[in-house]
Amino acid sequence: MTEVTSKRRSRKAGLPPGTLVYIGDKKTEKAFINIIDYNEAEVQEKSAVTPEECREYVDKSTVTWINMTGLHDTDILQKLGDVFGIHPLILEDIVNTSQRPKLEDYGDYLFLVFKMLYHSPKDGSIVSEQMSLVLGRNYVLSFQEIPGDIFDAIRERIRAGKGRIRKHGCDYLAYTLLDAVVDHYFVVLEDLGDRIDLLQEKVLVNTDRNIVHELHNLKKEVIFMRKNLWPLRELVSGLEKSESHLIHKAMIPYFRDVYEHTVQVLDTVESLRDVLSSVFEIYLSNMSNKMNETMKMLTLIATIFIPLTFIAGVYGMNFENMPELKWEMGYAGVWVIMILTASGMCVFFKRKKWL
Amino acid sequence: MTEVTSKRRSRKAGLPPGTLVYIGDKKTEKAFINIIDYNEAEVQEKSAVTPEECREYVDKSTVTWINMTGLHDTDILQKLGDVFGIHPLILEDIVNTSQRPKLEDYGDYLFLVFKMLYHSPKDGSIVSEQMSLVLGRNYVLSFQEIPGDIFDAIRERIRAGKGRIRKHGCDYLAYTLLDAVVDHYFVVLEDLGDRIDLLQEKVLVNTDRNIVHELHNLKKEVIFMRKNLWPLRELVSGLEKSESHLIHKAMIPYFRDVYEHTVQVLDTVESLRDVLSSVFEIYLSNMSNKMNETMKMLTLIATIFIPLTFIAGVYGMNFENMPELKWEMGYAGVWVIMILTASGMCVFFKRKKWL
Amino acid sequence: MTEVTSKRRSRKAGLPPGTLVYIGDKKTEKAFINIIDYNEAEVQEKSAVTPEECREYVDKSTVTWINMTGLHDTDILQKLGDVFGIHPLILEDIVNTSQRPKLEDYGDYLFLVFKMLYHSPKDGSIVSEQMSLVLGRNYVLSFQEIPGDIFDAIRERIRAGKGRIRKHGCDYLAYTLLDAVVDHYFVVLEDLGDRIDLLQEKVLVNTDRNIVHELHNLKKEVIFMRKNLWPLRELVSGLEKSESHLIHKAMIPYFRDVYEHTVQVLDTVESLRDVLSSVFEIYLSNMSNKMNETMKMLTLIATIFIPLTFIAGVYGMNFENMPELKWEMGYAGVWVIMILTASGMCVFFKRKKWL
Amino acid sequence: MTEVTSKRRSRKAGLPPGTLVYIGDKKTEKAFINIIDYNEAEVQEKSAVTPEECREYVDKSTVTWINMTGLHDTDILQKLGDVFGIHPLILEDIVNTSQRPKLEDYGDYLFLVFKMLYHSPKDGSIVSEQMSLVLGRNYVLSFQEIPGDIFDAIRERIRAGKGRIRKHGCDYLAYTLLDAVVDHYFVVLEDLGDRIDLLQEKVLVNTDRNIVHELHNLKKEVIFMRKNLWPLRELVSGLEKSESHLIHKAMIPYFRDVYEHTVQVLDTVESLRDVLSSVFEIYLSNMSNKMNETMKMLTLIATIFIPLTFIAGVYGMNFENMPELKWEMGYAGVWVIMILTASGMCVFFKRKKWL
Amino acid sequence: MTEVTSKRRSRKAGLPPGTLVYIGDKKTEKAFINIIDYNEAEVQEKSAVTPEECREYVDKSTVTWINMTGLHDTDILQKLGDVFGIHPLILEDIVNTSQRPKLEDYGDYLFLVFKMLYHSPKDGSIVSEQMSLVLGRNYVLSFQEIPGDIFDAIRERIRAGKGRIRKHGCDYLAYTLLDAVVDHYFVVLEDLGDRIDLLQEKVLVNTDRNIVHELHNLKKEVIFMRKNLWPLRELVSGLEKSESHLIHKAMIPYFRDVYEHTVQVLDTVESLRDVLSSVFEIYLSNMSNKMNETMKMLTLIATIFIPLTFIAGVYGMNFENMPELKWEMGYAGVWVIMILTASGMCVFFKRKKWL
Repeated sequence: MTEVTSKRRSRKAGLPPGTLVYIGDKKTEKAFINIIDYNEAEVQEKSAVTPEECREYVDKSTVTWINMTGLHDTDILQKLGDVFGIHPLILEDIVNTSQRPKLEDYGDYLFLVFKMLYHSPKDGSIVSEQMSLVLGRNYVLSFQEIPGDIFDAIRERIRAGKGRIRKHGCDYLAYTLLDAVVDHYFVVLEDLGDRIDLLQEKVLVNTDRNIVHELHNLKKEVIFMRKNLWPLRELVSGLEKSESHLIHKAMIPYFRDVYEHTVQVLDTVESLRDVLSSVFEIYLSNMSNKMNETMKMLTLIATIFIPLTFIAGVYGMNFENMPELKWEMGYAGVWVIMILTASGMCVFFKRKKWL
Repeated sequence: MTEVTSKRRSRKAGLPPGTLVYIGDKKTEKAFINIIDYNEAEVQEKSAVTPEECREYVDKSTVTWINMTGLHDTDILQKLGDVFGIHPLILEDIVNTSQRPKLEDYGDYLFLVFKMLYHSPKDGSIVSEQMSLVLGRNYVLSFQEIPGDIFDAIRERIRAGKGRIRKHGCDYLAYTLLDAVVDHYFVVLEDLGDRIDLLQEKVLVNTDRNIVHELHNLKKEVIFMRKNLWPLRELVSGLEKSESHLIHKAMIPYFRDVYEHTVQVLDTVESLRDVLSSVFEIYLSNMSNKMNETMKMLTLIATIFIPLTFIAGVYGMNFENMPELKWEMGYAGVWVIMILTASGMCVFFKRKKWL
Repeated sequence: MTEVTSKRRSRKAGLPPGTLVYIGDKKTEKAFINIIDYNEAEVQEKSAVTPEECREYVDKSTVTWINMTGLHDTDILQKLGDVFGIHPLILEDIVNTSQRPKLEDYGDYLFLVFKMLYHSPKDGSIVSEQMSLVLGRNYVLSFQEIPGDIFDAIRERIRAGKGRIRKHGCDYLAYTLLDAVVDHYFVVLEDLGDRIDLLQEKVLVNTDRNIVHELHNLKKEVIFMRKNLWPLRELVSGLEKSESHLIHKAMIPYFRDVYEHTVQVLDTVESLRDVLSSVFEIYLSNMSNKMNETMKMLTLIATIFIPLTFIAGVYGMNFENMPELKWEMGYAGVWVIMILTASGMCVFFKRKKWL
Repeated sequence: MTEVTSKRRSRKAGLPPGTLVYIGDKKTEKAFINIIDYNEAEVQEKSAVTPEECREYVDKSTVTWINMTGLHDTDILQKLGDVFGIHPLILEDIVNTSQRPKLEDYGDYLFLVFKMLYHSPKDGSIVSEQMSLVLGRNYVLSFQEIPGDIFDAIRERIRAGKGRIRKHGCDYLAYTLLDAVVDHYFVVLEDLGDRIDLLQEKVLVNTDRNIVHELHNLKKEVIFMRKNLWPLRELVSGLEKSESHLIHKAMIPYFRDVYEHTVQVLDTVESLRDVLSSVFEIYLSNMSNKMNETMKMLTLIATIFIPLTFIAGVYGMNFENMPELKWEMGYAGVWVIMILTASGMCVFFKRKKWL
Repeated sequence: MTEVTSKRRSRKAGLPPGTLVYIGDKKTEKAFINIIDYNEAEVQEKSAVTPEECREYVDKSTVTWINMTGLHDTDILQKLGDVFGIHPLILEDIVNTSQRPKLEDYGDYLFLVFKMLYHSPKDGSIVSEQMSLVLGRNYVLSFQEIPGDIFDAIRERIRAGKGRIRKHGCDYLAYTLLDAVVDHYFVVLEDLGDRIDLLQEKVLVNTDRNIVHELHNLKKEVIFMRKNLWPLRELVSGLEKSESHLIHKAMIPYFRDVYEHTVQVLDTVESLRDVLSSVFEIYLSNMSNKMNETMKMLTLIATIFIPLTFIAGVYGMNFENMPELKWEMGYAGVWVIMILTASGMCVFFKRKKWL
């Protein structure tokens, strides 16, 4: 998830603007297009349609949600773009999956591109995927590489006619999609928060080397989220303040709501960043503490025994004329001296609060 | 108090916008609604009313303060919302207790949501609770999970007709509530300040490992307060500059006053942050200092005695042909050499200012 | 001077807005009011007047400077406020001596509150005191707890008719007071700068533990000054750009001048902050350097003598069959070996640049 | 590439404004001018023309791209400037190759100056070169010191009439050039990202001294890129928002696209900066870790053997009256005591989790 | 050069606004006034004129550059100010040589004050001097304490009629002066850059204590430059955007050019700041590295020899019953054991990659 530099952007250098080069990995076997077409009265679904079959929905007054999965098939994308009259730069941005989140107003339609973050249904790892939306008057086009299930709940709501979704237009559909994506940021964020909490507890107990790597990884994830959230915030703020005729006045509170959620995610990410650097400080000072303790131990043992060893060394000398050696109480006396020295040292250390 | 990531926000992911899911803990046994209705002449109080009983106050010209306690009962909330015609997104925000502080102008009413911080009456610990206000023309709705006593003084003032409160309208009531909340921030802040002062004194004396944890906790509380204060500042600033017809011109100085207080709290929090990082620096350098002292001790003892022990070792050798051993003054001479060596070392250390 | 959190603000929590509670220390025995009333032709002074005696000056066309000393006497303050029709929130701010510097335009008068910093005439310590100004059309009210002598020079100039002061109106008087206060910031700042310079010199010579505490105290003073200077900057900038009819066009350059001075103080404070953190870095690296030197000493002595002591130990063994012990040149040979070993070590250390 | 201070800017100090002094290295043998002139129907190329020969293109309605290579020849530059009526300050900026990226609108033409970054075709090292553009109504002048091949692909497209380039005017040509330059930033950035990734892996394994130098170099490159990217961002943003008649409305999406790319590069550079400082933290803490391990080793060995050596020393003393020496089991007993001491120490260390 | 706090500003505290107190050092023996008066046709120079003699130039239609050297002579300054009708606050700012750079528009004239940085012609040290400019319709007044030679080249150009200077008015002259000053910033900056480069090289080789002091000094110079450059940037930006009638439209590109240069200096200063902190990091980690090496050395020697010394100590004991001592191969066996132990240790260290 957390590659800070996108690795394949350079493939495009030197190509004319508007050339469609998919720079991500091919993750889906075959590109396909699904359509859900609805109004308050009825819902109609079609799957695996061709771009040409979409033409009838360009001007149809119902709300049409056309979802294309599999961005590597640039042919289909190009044809779909031609049908809806999409600007070539937009098509280029859709396949350039390292695109920065942004909102662009082309008059007849709005173009939104942003990142989805979610736990992979397969192995639970975190997946980052680019999502592009084109919001027209009667249609919403959505583009993604792999068929995620973030939007399954929305499809279900459309079919069942639950909630407000069937009563509103395309702008509400776009809002719902965006809202679902931002909601999933919370899930990923809480996961991140949990891992940071865990690390905090670990760091209080030991000074394992792996903690630094774990910290580094978490920091990179936070950097990655910040990098995507700041432009996402701009995007949503742009929608809220948009004067496009495609967004009805009544939708403003909804987009403001998404905006507030985005800012909340961002605030939390910024706070997590502060917490992480505080955790690193604990780690460093704990390591220093441990070092201090080790050194104290060494110093204690060494400073007590080195003088004693010296004394023993003195009376191990072989001088012929060493009167102490012949004293009756010489040996006992040396023991007394040594014990007194050691005790003195201990008392000294106690006073210095080293024991 | 200081959970930086809100843990249960993810429960809502995938649900349609406007679904009421209370994400906090259920802290109150039973939800209930209280009403205080007053004008300059008289005060009327009702407790434990049903949402339907509130309907008469929607258009009544007196000031009506309706307080709902117990957000987990989303049914009552929904009904109350219907009575006053509250936008579904607002109801959603009220029960979403990890909401970011914000102000929203819906034309007919203003919606305010923010955090209260206060010391729990039970055990003195700090409690953070979400407070939502809906300010209409004739009514103020307030929503909270547990019945706090921050507002008891205000209720008392309304009953007694003390101060200006009975002479003003709903905007003044909202101001009074907000002012009481911000005033309690000062109390919590001073508590935080006291604990930081205590830590400063501790850090000068010892290098206890717990100091880092205490520091980390204080830092997290500062991060938590910052995270809530910046949007609160925006909220109050928005009220001051509001062009809503619900806020009279004469109220501007009052809201400006609250604004100044909020900024003051924020300034102090930012300053405390700087102080905390300075305290951490003291801690680190004190630890280094201690390390230095330990090392100096070890070096002193070792460098004085190691050469002496070597000399003693030399004359402990058992060579048959060691002339010094047979000298009359050999032993005394060795002592002289050893004492000279030790003294030389001490003088050397004195000069190097190590003693 | 440098309490970052104001300690008694919490006394006010729960009281109705507009309640006058003096939260500072009572530093003056008795509150009193002084009046200087002047125009270009004449000066009149009165001292120890009652609030009622001030009433005549409310509309008098001369410039009247009414100075109240002793904020703890909230009765007198309240009466004075009533005489001049001052908004209750202003009176509350005047006695709330932990007020953030600010400027407020109430139409008929401007309200300014800020901090004075000066050296106490008694013991030379730095004193921080809150100063409030109400600038009306014909009067300037000033409020402070203790009678400072910062303004004595201004009084003298009014009496003597020196400079431009007698030729201008109330706005010039307010400017003069503000200018005197900002000028005293320079004095305090230079004192701070001197202490930081002293510390810089100290830090180059030794690594005393007290340096950290001194650093911490200086840092806290810098934090304190920043906290007060940023809002002061806003205040003065507000005056310069004010469109109040109370400030004549011709005064703009004067207020711009004070503004420039404030920004200069602020710039210097920010620079001092950078210098302080650089001084701390020197301190840390000096401490590391010292540690390194100690360790090098220990390592040198230990690595030279430990092998020698081992050799001596070998020939101190009591094996019956140790041929070297019986060699004629055994003892001398061991000395040669030991001297060679030590020299080799020294040469090795020289090459490694450790000596 | 990464000289943060430009070294030869001072050559110009004291010279009158508008003096043409080329401050870079002379990298091209001979200055020369190439022309590509095209419209939708036809393309015409000329190389090695004189400035005078360019005069016919000043008002010709086709798109003319005049590229001058070799800035050291200020004579030719001056003449070319005269032919097109370029402001003397622009000519000065063109030869001042340490110029900050900027956009200037002179009414009749726009002036753009920015840095190209690319891998040298000779040895693969990264080259930074200044590129200046003058965008007139019918012509684009480009100035560079060495003939780079970044633009070869564009020339090819013009000749072949591929893409949209032949159908658009000068603004599209300028956009294409800028786009090619920004695209090459991605290439350099990915290279930088790869080197940082490599360093991250290295830093986990060892604590080689060279890592710091490598880190320092990478950091300097990041600083260099930031220094050039912030103004480049302003430049492109200026183009997008430009109200110049030289840029058609239809071009706005294109320049917005370049703007997004620039911001994306900048975001990535900022993220890399954060990653680098995190890598440095790993390095530091790994070094501390290693130190800790070394110290633990020393402490273990020393604290186990020092007491044992002392005991051995005691029974190496030569006192005549040492009863233990004569005991039958004395020697064995000492071994027992020594083994017990050592085991006790080991157990103690195990408990302290040092082993 | 790098005093961060200006030391004598406090002299002015308590004095009425507009009092002229020169707070710098008296560096010039005698104050004097020089005049260069020119138009496109002719140049006239006068030196050592009195303020009264300047009166004829107030309204003369030629461009008059009046330069006053020696600010300590406040009498002459006052008179000159009276002749040209300069606002008293400007005169105060001119002599207050710790003034923050600023631009002020007084309608009839503009006031500019900024710092010059240049190498002293005497000893090559860096000098910071305050320069004040008053730009009127027909005159430019410049004020400085010592006669610098930065402007000699400009005087020469005026005399020789080289460049554009004689063809333009006062605004061009002011621009030329400002441009010369900013050009000299580049010279000083390159010097700073060279010293930082030198330090970078030093820091890679050794960990001399002086490096920290050198770093600290460089950092203080960078702080000093930042402190003066940010307001200088505002000043030049103010000129560029000025709507004063004193600055002709045609001059805008020139001032924009100076602005760009100022921003470039500032960018470089900010980059140098980052480089400096990176250099400090190298220094710190190199010191840690050295420490690590020292410790490793000590640990190696100690852990190899301490066990050996213990073994030697054991067989140095004087127990009567020590069977090994009587073994024929006892001594040789001990050597074998000791060599095996030492080799084992070495192998262990090799495996741990400590050798």
